[in-house]
Amino acid sequence: MSAWRGGRVLVGDEASLAVDRGLLLGDGLFETVLVVDGRAMFLDRHLARLTASAAALRFPLPPSLAETVDVALADLHVADGRPLRGALRVNATRGVGRGLTARAGAPGLVVTFEALPDEAATTPLKARVVAAPRIDPRDPLSGRKTLSRMPFVHARRVATDRGADVALLTTIDGDVAEADAANLFVVVDGSLVTPPLDRGVLPGITRARCLQLEKTVERTISVADLARAEEAFLTSSLDGVRPLAEIDERALGGPGVASLRMARGLSDAGGSGFRNSRGPHNRSR
Amino acid sequence: MSAWRGGRVLVGDEASLAVDRGLLLGDGLFETVLVVDGRAMFLDRHLARLTASAAALRFPLPPSLAETVDVALADLHVADGRPLRGALRVNATRGVGRGLTARAGAPGLVVTFEALPDEAATTPLKARVVAAPRIDPRDPLSGRKTLSRMPFVHARRVATDRGADVALLTTIDGDVAEADAANLFVVVDGSLVTPPLDRGVLPGITRARCLQLEKTVERTISVADLARAEEAFLTSSLDGVRPLAEIDERALGGPGVASLRMARGLSDAGGSGFRNSRGPHNRSR
Repeated sequence: MSAWRGGRVLVGDEASLAVDRGLLLGDGLFETVLVVDGRAMFLDRHLARLTASAAALRFPLPPSLAETVDVALADLHVADGRPLRGALRVNATRGVGRGLTARAGAPGLVVTFEALPDEAATTPLKARVVAAPRIDPRDPLSGRKTLSRMPFVHARRVATDRGADVALLTTIDGDVAEADAANLFVVVDGSLVTPPLDRGVLPGITRARCLQLEKTVERTISVADLARAEEAFLTSSLDGVRPLAEIDERALGGPGVASLRMARGLSDAGGSGFRNSRGPHNRSR
Repeated sequence: MSAWRGGRVLVGDEASLAVDRGLLLGDGLFETVLVVDGRAMFLDRHLARLTASAAALRFPLPPSLAETVDVALADLHVADGRPLRGALRVNATRGVGRGLTARAGAPGLVVTFEALPDEAATTPLKARVVAAPRIDPRDPLSGRKTLSRMPFVHARRVATDRGADVALLTTIDGDVAEADAANLFVVVDGSLVTPPLDRGVLPGITRARCLQLEKTVERTISVADLARAEEAFLTSSLDGVRPLAEIDERALGGPGVASLRMARGLSDAGGSGFRNSRGPHNRSR
């Protein structure tokens, strides 16, 4: 196969690298990891999740993944001028090959790093429930961080077009599943609630940490629950806890008690928090 | 942003090109076009479909797309040694940028070309209905050729693991929609039937040509219809008409009357056929 990009013809290995199955088919898995002072936070848990997804989907991962990521992070952190904070993205692809049928071959790996501001944004976000795309809890790819992310890109655009910052997605059964790039927690009737993993939501690493910190009920959240929620926040690896200021234009007031307590708990436990001056808090699970 | 691949750190433009949103998020649209003797068959219709999808999804396309694709095809066809037949893939991405929120910027374009055998395979295929992933007809991305194709890769693997060649996908409503990379036609009670576009199926270019050639009923196909189909075939740009030999291990016999007549009709009309010695027939719509 040969490839053409920007007026240049690429052949052989150069073409294969430039257009592997990650690009041609979104055929890959990824993790986004918060880096603080050159240290990748909870990297073991991220790689464990990646490995579990790969096993469930029978997706081949490169050998010595953890060691390779360590090397890549060190190289990239230096190349970026050693910022205090950054986002590490580990992208594992199914390697080279056109067509849906995957042939046995070397899996691909691309690691990226981007500096983040020293202090994460903590402004509460406006969320909007979008009608589509919807999550199919029976889809084996739901709850997996695949590179086929265009449905979430589309959901985000629909939400931002309506003046919100993030989209909330429903399942095909009509219940509320998750945000476009974060897990959702709401307080209803005084109880902290989050959708269970069997609703097709991502098994967020920050979500799991939150469940260990505060009594939380894992149950289906209806659109009616959302409409009367007293408080709501999102969780993700880059953002930690991020309160919602509005859902579907209904104001929720400032950061609520539950989000403040959860952010403090995460911070005390040594990881991502909210309003923690050392800064490990922001975007992506 | 910097990127790490194969032990090498890429920075600046090199990194941006290597890891644009096509790779990071499957954030793009594509077309696969059959090339015969250096000529891209029905290229105008492919680019019209790409343009329509881009407009519907508010996805930015590069300027002078048709002219650029012409240049790329000429360069690539020569680079590949001027094969009689080939597959041209036009991949339009949303360009550079991390995160779900798309920033305004130059759209990306990567064109690939791969030589195909002079004669396409015409062996009837074995198809298998897979339980998941399912198509959501209300999803604005259903029926679009997005680069987020991992669900179809997964469906293909599930089918091939069970001894079939291709997967047939159902909708979340339980009816049969399309094959993993082709449209589906079946003969039931003597009528040629194909699912309507509102079932979330791809508006296949070969599908549209077939509808003009033979009286076909566009209606929902149930799993029960499929179980008693007298004949079935798939249509795609690379394969033209490809008969099904089996559905869920039920033999359908050799190529049926409808598929042979349709293949002859396509061939006479100057495009992809089936068992046409000049060869323009095979994979992808």
